[in-house]
Amino acid sequence: MKANIKHRGKTRIVVIGGGLGGLRLMKALKGCGMQVVLVDRNNYHQFPPLIYQVASAGLEPSSISFPFRKMLQGREEVFFRMGEVKSIDANEKVLQTSFGKLYYDYLVIAAGATTNFFGNERMARNVLPMKTVLDGMNLRNTILSNLERAEVETDEETLRALLTVAVVGGGPSGVEIAGALAEMKRTIVPRDYPDMDTAKMRIVLVNSDARLLKSMDEASSRRAERDLTEMGVEVMPGARVADCRDGVLYMEDGSTLATRTVIWVAGIRANRFMSTPEMTLGAGGRIVTDTCLRVKGLNDVFAIGDVSIVDGDKDYPHGHPQLAQVAMQQADCVAKTIKRRKSSEQRGGNVSDQVFRYRDLGTMATIGRKKAVAEIARLKFGGITAWLLWLVVHLRSLLGVRNKIVVLINWMWNYFNYRSSLRLIFRNEDKTV
Amino acid sequence: MKANIKHRGKTRIVVIGGGLGGLRLMKALKGCGMQVVLVDRNNYHQFPPLIYQVASAGLEPSSISFPFRKMLQGREEVFFRMGEVKSIDANEKVLQTSFGKLYYDYLVIAAGATTNFFGNERMARNVLPMKTVLDGMNLRNTILSNLERAEVETDEETLRALLTVAVVGGGPSGVEIAGALAEMKRTIVPRDYPDMDTAKMRIVLVNSDARLLKSMDEASSRRAERDLTEMGVEVMPGARVADCRDGVLYMEDGSTLATRTVIWVAGIRANRFMSTPEMTLGAGGRIVTDTCLRVKGLNDVFAIGDVSIVDGDKDYPHGHPQLAQVAMQQADCVAKTIKRRKSSEQRGGNVSDQVFRYRDLGTMATIGRKKAVAEIARLKFGGITAWLLWLVVHLRSLLGVRNKIVVLINWMWNYFNYRSSLRLIFRNEDKTV
Repeated sequence: MKANIKHRGKTRIVVIGGGLGGLRLMKALKGCGMQVVLVDRNNYHQFPPLIYQVASAGLEPSSISFPFRKMLQGREEVFFRMGEVKSIDANEKVLQTSFGKLYYDYLVIAAGATTNFFGNERMARNVLPMKTVLDGMNLRNTILSNLERAEVETDEETLRALLTVAVVGGGPSGVEIAGALAEMKRTIVPRDYPDMDTAKMRIVLVNSDARLLKSMDEASSRRAERDLTEMGVEVMPGARVADCRDGVLYMEDGSTLATRTVIWVAGIRANRFMSTPEMTLGAGGRIVTDTCLRVKGLNDVFAIGDVSIVDGDKDYPHGHPQLAQVAMQQADCVAKTIKRRKSSEQRGGNVSDQVFRYRDLGTMATIGRKKAVAEIARLKFGGITAWLLWLVVHLRSLLGVRNKIVVLINWMWNYFNYRSSLRLIFRNEDKTV
Repeated sequence: MKANIKHRGKTRIVVIGGGLGGLRLMKALKGCGMQVVLVDRNNYHQFPPLIYQVASAGLEPSSISFPFRKMLQGREEVFFRMGEVKSIDANEKVLQTSFGKLYYDYLVIAAGATTNFFGNERMARNVLPMKTVLDGMNLRNTILSNLERAEVETDEETLRALLTVAVVGGGPSGVEIAGALAEMKRTIVPRDYPDMDTAKMRIVLVNSDARLLKSMDEASSRRAERDLTEMGVEVMPGARVADCRDGVLYMEDGSTLATRTVIWVAGIRANRFMSTPEMTLGAGGRIVTDTCLRVKGLNDVFAIGDVSIVDGDKDYPHGHPQLAQVAMQQADCVAKTIKRRKSSEQRGGNVSDQVFRYRDLGTMATIGRKKAVAEIARLKFGGITAWLLWLVVHLRSLLGVRNKIVVLINWMWNYFNYRSSLRLIFRNEDKTV
């Protein structure tokens, strides 16, 4: 087996990972005159900011996913290969992949990050991550199945555990899913389960930090906590999880919480990657690059986004935050460098690679209907303005016109009558689906 | 554990199965003044006629599924319980279910049918059914994964097996999925896989009968065969499958076909059901009822739809066809009987149960864009008229306004530019989703 791509004498760029960074890079390399190969383990791009809405049964998985092949249709000398990269040989400039050898002239690693269980294997087995569309589907199935079980449960203790959802992690993902579940409790559960005592349903947001959204301003943190509390979420600040087993969440301070659904959004680590001997890994397993995003010691290998960390930017001595914006701006930077090197090659001149400078465009987190927080430049605001801005920004960023339309229909539907009809348990016990 | 439904002194009707028959019954029983409990193993209704479009990546699974609880919102004394029925005790009038005991006054079995592998266990393991939405998702994943594998395959023999899809069964489902795959081959594959030699992709329709659509008129059969052949489907009439293993389909005449995708739509059998000693099972495991749809020997137990067969209708000496229309009309018939019995109970008079008379409203099958066959009363027609009629009828039958809108958008999208963006492989290797 081999990659089945003829070299045709052109310079070949291989991009590992079609997340927000990899995707932006594919776009930025349009018309570059080189051969570009995208490798991803899935055949689709997924849009992380809306995964929590898949988990809360507000959106279809297909609305926030887009097939790479469809995206790349009609582009010359651009190839997609589904598979995993097993190792990199930087001397020979070749990748070992699940579909055979793949040579490169330039390599860009944009492999992203995955859920961090901080080495706790049992935790990894007993809690539910929310990092991928498949995680979102799995969460939707679990939340709905537990409601169905609660409906026929007569043991009071088990009933309460089935109706308690713990969200571990007070970052944007934790705030967003806690808010969405609080709305589900208020609007959907009473209609779908008229005999259920909704008061017994609890959403507990477990946060190891003293405040929510610690990457944002304190005013935003306070606002988020106030909004969530008003919506019925129990926010537990400064609570560190020690263990999770047999339907009980154990805190470091000795307290416990009986729950059948633990959503784990407590941290991420760079995707495990067969590193070459030359690569240095930093905090969270991130590949260390220089300020031109070159993997340390390798001139033709770049790394962008959540998988890597820049060493040497004096404005960000501990590296840049792991945000979509950083990944996308880094993609533009690397595209510039590669194009510049190519044209200087043709002209025969010398070239200097593009130094990455991060431009902070602001951050946002949604909390619930008409409730969000946003920080753009020095502006910090919340409420309906932030919420509408959040809707527009995310709708614009979504890939595909059909997806935009379907998501908009779903949002309007849910907004006006809370009438989502996506509470489907698509779980196949017999076969992998 | 128990069913958690208080009896409240009312007459209770239990309906097993929320397919097209069970759903129609729930509707027909609206305002009947009795307690109605629907039991289904899934939490959603699914719409069988469009499952093939999920398999061919034209529709989302959620567009042809609808949560029971949403459907039953606001109805008094109507309950839904997700679970499996394990046994029926007709003397005590109680069901044993996965969620405990459930008493009934009237029982309606509408449990439907499942794929029939005719007792061949190996066949069941090596072929792919297309009876449920989950089957549809599984097929979509398999078809797309095999295309991805073909893209990097260099062994000619394996490549051809990956690109060959065998559809076993020449009924409406077989004709519809074969047609949809032929369109995929013609319109989508060349754009998504520009380097692939599309000529190597084969869709083979294996039919044990001499003609397709044998429940329809011969003219319709000929038309379907001609249309499919023109679209590039290889129709194999009179071909009986003997076995399927190691990527090879073995025919009874000794010929073989190397293929990695065998879609099995060759027949159905009634869902296996813990029968009471009184129940008689007919052909295909169907529960035998009298002409009033009462399970033979049990006055308060009815059976409708694909799970049962009527004995004694002189117009249908071998039972009615297993069609949506039959199930739905039978639901109306049983609702009438139950309501009639109740009112006579109140008046204290005698009552005669409603005899079922099937009114044939016609049959249809779609073949491809602007291609379908329809038989309504004595009219037999095809082409664009039949196709448009098919679209309208199926859109109308779909549950939920949102679903109708989303399906219509998807259809228009696909019609005008073949631009479906649903070619997503949502297969989780690690966890059940």
